[in-house]
Amino acid sequence: MAELTELLTDALGAGKVSVGSDIGEDYTHDESLTASWVTPAALVRVESVGDVRSVLSIANEHGVPVTARGAGTGLSGACVPTADGILISFERMNRIIEIDADNSVATVEPGVLLSQLDEALAPSGLAYAVYPGEYSASLGGNVATNAGGMRAVKYGVTRHNVLGLQAVLATGEVIETGGPVAKNSTGYDLTQLIVGSEGTLAIVTRATLKLVPRPRCGATVLAPFTTVSEVAKAVPRIVASGIGPALLEYVDMITMAATTHSADLNLGIPPAVKEKAAAYLVVGLEDSNEDRLEQVVETTCGLLDELGAMDLYVLPAESAAKLISAREKAFWVAKAAGADEIVDTVVPRAMIPEFLAKAQEVATANQTWIAGCGHAGDGNVHLAVFQKDPVILHTVLLELFGAAMDLGGAISGEHALGTEKKRYFEELEDPAKVALMRRVKAAFDPKGILNAGKVFDQEEVVAR
Amino acid sequence: MAELTELLTDALGAGKVSVGSDIGEDYTHDESLTASWVTPAALVRVESVGDVRSVLSIANEHGVPVTARGAGTGLSGACVPTADGILISFERMNRIIEIDADNSVATVEPGVLLSQLDEALAPSGLAYAVYPGEYSASLGGNVATNAGGMRAVKYGVTRHNVLGLQAVLATGEVIETGGPVAKNSTGYDLTQLIVGSEGTLAIVTRATLKLVPRPRCGATVLAPFTTVSEVAKAVPRIVASGIGPALLEYVDMITMAATTHSADLNLGIPPAVKEKAAAYLVVGLEDSNEDRLEQVVETTCGLLDELGAMDLYVLPAESAAKLISAREKAFWVAKAAGADEIVDTVVPRAMIPEFLAKAQEVATANQTWIAGCGHAGDGNVHLAVFQKDPVILHTVLLELFGAAMDLGGAISGEHALGTEKKRYFEELEDPAKVALMRRVKAAFDPKGILNAGKVFDQEEVVAR
Repeated sequence: MAELTELLTDALGAGKVSVGSDIGEDYTHDESLTASWVTPAALVRVESVGDVRSVLSIANEHGVPVTARGAGTGLSGACVPTADGILISFERMNRIIEIDADNSVATVEPGVLLSQLDEALAPSGLAYAVYPGEYSASLGGNVATNAGGMRAVKYGVTRHNVLGLQAVLATGEVIETGGPVAKNSTGYDLTQLIVGSEGTLAIVTRATLKLVPRPRCGATVLAPFTTVSEVAKAVPRIVASGIGPALLEYVDMITMAATTHSADLNLGIPPAVKEKAAAYLVVGLEDSNEDRLEQVVETTCGLLDELGAMDLYVLPAESAAKLISAREKAFWVAKAAGADEIVDTVVPRAMIPEFLAKAQEVATANQTWIAGCGHAGDGNVHLAVFQKDPVILHTVLLELFGAAMDLGGAISGEHALGTEKKRYFEELEDPAKVALMRRVKAAFDPKGILNAGKVFDQEEVVAR
Repeated sequence: MAELTELLTDALGAGKVSVGSDIGEDYTHDESLTASWVTPAALVRVESVGDVRSVLSIANEHGVPVTARGAGTGLSGACVPTADGILISFERMNRIIEIDADNSVATVEPGVLLSQLDEALAPSGLAYAVYPGEYSASLGGNVATNAGGMRAVKYGVTRHNVLGLQAVLATGEVIETGGPVAKNSTGYDLTQLIVGSEGTLAIVTRATLKLVPRPRCGATVLAPFTTVSEVAKAVPRIVASGIGPALLEYVDMITMAATTHSADLNLGIPPAVKEKAAAYLVVGLEDSNEDRLEQVVETTCGLLDELGAMDLYVLPAESAAKLISAREKAFWVAKAAGADEIVDTVVPRAMIPEFLAKAQEVATANQTWIAGCGHAGDGNVHLAVFQKDPVILHTVLLELFGAAMDLGGAISGEHALGTEKKRYFEELEDPAKVALMRRVKAAFDPKGILNAGKVFDQEEVVAR
């Protein structure tokens, strides 16, 4: 290990490599509720693509695992290092390289935070559309996990907003994929293969992001319903209407009570309505023009009324912002309440009621408690699962994920697999597909050094 | 060969396998202007995924190349078979399996034509958004080439509208990738890897497509400008305005004259304007509501006026449809005029004037004639190149593609590489990326049977 430290320090210069007790606790974990905390053999705070290249060349030569880390806001343990490996932190590679308004693209280093990018974009009248609900997340982490979030119903997830990458391969070769163009049919789409690969195929050192016109005005409509099923049935109708909501969230009664309570938020809903409401639909609308927005709000309210909403509240900007912010913090509320795992399963949007019914069945059968909310517009259901026994928790999760897959969905909508969902993926996914993914992994990383221990880790080819 | 025919006939039953003179000329080519026509050793008209599986199992065992063919409307030779290989035609796998309005998805077999799907979707109030300008194209071909077209500026290209696939691997294994969900962060995105891979990684047997609300009303604004540069400068402004055009095309003077002449189309543009117009911008607008559409048309006209349009024509629906249809047929007009190659290079949209200037330079230096039009909104430039000498034509194309890449673009925006752009790709692309793509190809298709002779063909691993 002393030898590794020496090799790294020699290659990178002073002040970038830390070992032992110099590695702060922050670097040992992300925000996953279940992942074990691990201190790496060495922490490298890289400052350039050259640094990353040097680290990977050394690591590949010596068969040392390398894990990349953004801001550590992940929820699946994907950036947790291995004890014998190197952790590359991108906190110092946080430059916004270019904001190109004419081509509606921004080029950023992986350590750039969403909040930082948004602030920089404000004067240009443009915006990066992905908002995973945590503005302190890094773009590099977002790319690695294919982060989603609330605005995906209108703008898609990270992969739909990444046009190109600069990435370092396990061998130390630097490649540039895609570019500042939305159309491209020139060879395999390496960009989309690397996005969402959780640092297991290559280490991203730069991303070219698509920008969209910054919405000039917005409105939020809150609609309580007496059943979750009605909420779910309303969703496809709203999507098909052409209203084009930027946000289409459902919040169940318990989550709404907990979040509004925790945020000390009064939405002006009369107690009689609150008592009968089983779930709420939150519809966010945006436009570049006030008059047009007003028309859309009117259409939306008419439609929600038709769809059986108990009542309708067009929230004042301040309450709306507070509600969205409280909704984003649902994870923290669940964590504070003692949730043992957070699930971000995705199902076809019309299958939400069926999935929730099945989830409730699974919970009841296993004496487990669940509560949830979700990105209803894209079928992404967040469940807080309360079950202390790890064996029962495993059973519950396995059944929940299996139920989602049976309905045409997938284990993770936006948090990715990391260490914590890897096992379910391996248990539930088609072995032919897993084998194919492993072969793809080997095509990129023959020695298996990149984010070893995560999904597609292939013990058989690791030459440590 | 007789043995191969026997193996195929034994496996598939009667009436599916043709050889020799029973293979019609249609199967030997696509619409590429330059690709050689090739008759395959055997033509198989598959009827099910089981048939595809049988063909691939036999082909893989015996190391026989397999090429998939949709409707044959491609422009790069990607579906041209090899003389010693099997051509799989999907003309009989043309069922629309499901239109699921609640989840806004359609599931189709690869032989379904765009026109067929559009007709089937009309009653549902939904639409498949990709329109590559040729309604007789098949969905399978669109997936293989990642087809783009006019509406990409608003709705993205094929890859943005394909949510999942069923595909057969070279070994005969059938996999299902993705699903009827827009959010998914569960392993590598095999869907996006297969889309645009031109049948070189797997043979797609089913696609799950994203549907969008069918626009209820539309308007088309035509704006002549005195310079191409003004047109190109207007484009980013329109994109950034939030107007959200569904179509943003430029047509140069020559192409406009040729297409309107060939379509016998009178747009009511006074001769004085026509004479001074160097290029036209066509802005297509859509909405779910008439009043909102009118407002957007007004805003658009105001903006175009500000941006220096010589005049503005809000086209009546009939003329608009004719213009768009004539614009789509620009390829045929160019072909009839004797064009020797059609280029579909893409550059960042603001770089169009720079690219066109460079293209003119290259043309002049090589005594070659070029004319063009393009999907201005996404920087996708179509050039008809008139040069009979194949050596000079190669030089011109190499320089054009090189210029596009230098500006941050790529060789093909939407036609893909096939046989005809393969050589330029190999000459111009980063060898590290090409090598990586070849390794990915080998991970899918170790014997190199899938669309052999096309891009990423790897002689070294072919075990014929």
